Amino acid sequence: MINMKKLRLGIIGYGFMGQWHNNHAGTLEEVEIVAICDTDPEKRAEAPENVKMYTDYKALLADSDVEWVMISVPNHLHHDIAIDAAKAKKNIIVEKPCALNVQEFDEMYQAAKDNGVLFTVDQNRRWDRDYCTVKKVLEQNSIGKVFMVKSSHYGVFGRMHDWHEYPECGGGMLYDWGVHLIDQMLDLIPGKITQISADMKCAVNKSVDDYFRILLYFDNGLAAEIELGTFLLKKLPRWYVAGDTGTLVVENIKADEGAIYRAKEFREALPKTVKNIDAGPTRTFSVKAEDVVSTEPLPEIHRKHNDWNDFFRNIVGVINGTEELIVKPEQVRRVLQVMELARKSAALRKSVDFE
Amino acid sequence: MINMKKLRLGIIGYGFMGQWHNNHAGTLEEVEIVAICDTDPEKRAEAPENVKMYTDYKALLADSDVEWVMISVPNHLHHDIAIDAAKAKKNIIVEKPCALNVQEFDEMYQAAKDNGVLFTVDQNRRWDRDYCTVKKVLEQNSIGKVFMVKSSHYGVFGRMHDWHEYPECGGGMLYDWGVHLIDQMLDLIPGKITQISADMKCAVNKSVDDYFRILLYFDNGLAAEIELGTFLLKKLPRWYVAGDTGTLVVENIKADEGAIYRAKEFREALPKTVKNIDAGPTRTFSVKAEDVVSTEPLPEIHRKHNDWNDFFRNIVGVINGTEELIVKPEQVRRVLQVMELARKSAALRKSVDFE
Repeated sequence: MINMKKLRLGIIGYGFMGQWHNNHAGTLEEVEIVAICDTDPEKRAEAPENVKMYTDYKALLADSDVEWVMISVPNHLHHDIAIDAAKAKKNIIVEKPCALNVQEFDEMYQAAKDNGVLFTVDQNRRWDRDYCTVKKVLEQNSIGKVFMVKSSHYGVFGRMHDWHEYPECGGGMLYDWGVHLIDQMLDLIPGKITQISADMKCAVNKSVDDYFRILLYFDNGLAAEIELGTFLLKKLPRWYVAGDTGTLVVENIKADEGAIYRAKEFREALPKTVKNIDAGPTRTFSVKAEDVVSTEPLPEIHRKHNDWNDFFRNIVGVINGTEELIVKPEQVRRVLQVMELARKSAALRKSVDFE
Repeated sequence: MINMKKLRLGIIGYGFMGQWHNNHAGTLEEVEIVAICDTDPEKRAEAPENVKMYTDYKALLADSDVEWVMISVPNHLHHDIAIDAAKAKKNIIVEKPCALNVQEFDEMYQAAKDNGVLFTVDQNRRWDRDYCTVKKVLEQNSIGKVFMVKSSHYGVFGRMHDWHEYPECGGGMLYDWGVHLIDQMLDLIPGKITQISADMKCAVNKSVDDYFRILLYFDNGLAAEIELGTFLLKKLPRWYVAGDTGTLVVENIKADEGAIYRAKEFREALPKTVKNIDAGPTRTFSVKAEDVVSTEPLPEIHRKHNDWNDFFRNIVGVINGTEELIVKPEQVRRVLQVMELARKSAALRKSVDFE
């Protein structure tokens, strides 16, 4: 594209995610990594040679070549740096979770608005293949009226690493993965959430949450479940969505396993005779009888698995006036609200009101 | 056994369950089917020839050969017949659900106490192989401290049959199967329930519930989930129990599939390097890596699948003073309380307080 404005980015925090962005978004023609900042000499040593290096993020913010900043430091440091970036008139991308709570977010976003800069969050999992598949099936209305949605993510290693082990740094799985799973669910299901009911545990870690189950009750009647554990040793499907004409199962994040299931004998054609099955003698209810259920493949999704650069392509589109911002600050705020209320519900062991 | 007192039973209601009891419990040496009653000539025609037949249950209740009655009529008729049976000084077995609500139960049980007769309910699924397997694993403390329990039952046919389609007869799946799944969970997990959160739907049936998810928050910190649907076309495991040293999965009611899963690399041995997996680059969290999880077979359970006659053998033991009653009226009442509060929670779309 001739005359396309590039995304001129300074990366603040060159740990795992900072390096990821340099090595991925940095390869895009539309993105130019102008500067990198880290306090740690070991991390700075990982940086490419042709990029300006800073040890103090305020020096990076003073660099007039930097038009955008990617704030990819540990979670508890996002707030102050974002506010300083706004004051320095830099457009802002924050790693997820954007903030530790809604109050922090409000201060950060207010600073962005006051200084007339753009503000978004790297909610890259909006572009995951599994999520895009579920979204497409629901948009196509392929399984009728949906009455149940489960988003589950089970891991086997148990413990966290690095600063994710410490609550004061914004550690734990609600911040690390919950923020994605909630963001996806809110993007997927329209309508207000009336009630939130959550269970959270330090199941195998001592000080940060590594298991949670969050139920979101929407005003359209749907109850959506989000469940994650780092020590759940048998995998369940990543997505299970039940509609009144079929069931969608996406087995994994890559979305290369799964199907849409349909009943061959539908409700009108209940078996006339009682059958003896494992559950006992039954007509209505039975465990799955293979011969009455057919399967269809998942719909085609025309995107590479884990090409999260679409997040940056969207920002380039915004810069060039050809696209709207996909990850909107208001959405980010709503996700943080849900996270706060999930913690509250889990602490009270009661459901709590929302919108 | 010489001088063993038999269970001399009159069956009131010779539909599906009445016939089941005649054909199964009736074959036990310890049980004698003395009389059968049904208002429907077609059902009476199914009865064996050597048994006294009645068309009016009051006539059966007046028969002095009958010492126990099995009340296996549609759910909404249990209450009046049980009270009449108590007044006729018959010991009472009621089909599940015992009553439509706690008030009905209280009146029935009070009548039994006032008349000095025994009272129990055919909660036969306490003897299911899957449930006995889970109970044994928990009793043996095989998976450490349990932090999550799921009991799920998914069917594919969708609709109900016969009177189960009508709310006024006590139709729907909470009464039909929920009563079993709740009874099992209360029997499995000690302690008080502090909070109940439920979602219930008429997903593919018009007038009765055919989907529910009930969360029971116990005072020991555990949140147990019970989920059932008649139109969930991909089966999930019947039981999923997560502990801090392993995971138990019982795939089906027959309990001939499933395992105890253990991590080979435990928390201390988190992989040192970042791995690129389907979920993205990660250390802590990953979708299941087969090579780090080992499996153990489910424990041996020395009972036949679906030999529900153990329920009747227990009553014979009670009659002969060798056993305590296993299905206690107080337990039956607590299950009905949970069912009432689950309905209330689902209607309010809020969690509700319990014990």
